[in-house]
Amino acid sequence: MSITTHRGHQGDFTWEEVPVLAYKQAGAAPFRDVTRQVLFDDAALGCQLRYFEVAPAGHTTLERHAHLHAVMIIRGHGQCLVGERVFAVGAHDLVHIPSLIWHQFRADADGPLGFLCMVNAERDRPQLPSAEDLLALGQCGLVAEFIRR
Amino acid sequence: MSITTHRGHQGDFTWEEVPVLAYKQAGAAPFRDVTRQVLFDDAALGCQLRYFEVAPAGHTTLERHAHLHAVMIIRGHGQCLVGERVFAVGAHDLVHIPSLIWHQFRADADGPLGFLCMVNAERDRPQLPSAEDLLALGQCGLVAEFIRR
Repeated sequence: MSITTHRGHQGDFTWEEVPVLAYKQAGAAPFRDVTRQVLFDDAALGCQLRYFEVAPAGHTTLERHAHLHAVMIIRGHGQCLVGERVFAVGAHDLVHIPSLIWHQFRADADGPLGFLCMVNAERDRPQLPSAEDLLALGQCGLVAEFIRR
Repeated sequence: MSITTHRGHQGDFTWEEVPVLAYKQAGAAPFRDVTRQVLFDDAALGCQLRYFEVAPAGHTTLERHAHLHAVMIIRGHGQCLVGERVFAVGAHDLVHIPSLIWHQFRADADGPLGFLCMVNAERDRPQLPSAEDLLALGQCGLVAEFIRR
């Protein structure tokens, strides 16, 4: 295998030999101003490690899936919705997204939110909320306020 | 499962509900001034994410094993030996430790070196160098200088 042993941080949360990718295919799901970088993806590892960055006031897709996310914030601050709870998150906080729980990350308006996400290399596709799911999520005041913004 | 969704960073690279552990059992292997914190260890994930911190001028064990390490430095700076190469490492650099390659991390004298390490949950035990291995490693000038310090 030809994986480079040392890949330096180039500043501004970009790395040597790591392309900055679109978060998802445009139109595939609702999101705003998010990039994706795959930091480690080796067939001999059971997981991948990715870095996502949400631009100021941007947000990831509201979604759920059977696979877990193990997240560490490494840049900025924002909020995350996990099930019926909303957490304020900042640098080096840890977030565990359980199986099949609706979740979404938002960056505060004054700067980007960047986080590492460890995920199983083999995993199911994310599900998007139906109109019925959104109605159910909207029953909880905090969640309704979060996803409405 | 009762994994806490949000565990805040408490400052100084410690986290809510995450105990600061000994790096290894005392006497099990040579190392100096290293702590270990297991950040994510869920049976549904193929990998664990750990945080290791090496105190100023400390070092991890010189070892090798079949399993890989996927490392991101998140605190301070130092050096790492990977095979016959020595790299200066600093915040957010990425290090990929291949299978069965001798490796060791050292913190610079002026501050701690802290890094995340993603590793397969199921893995082989580390091997320590024999006298013969050390002799072979010492054939390379850079490596000899590194492991002699």
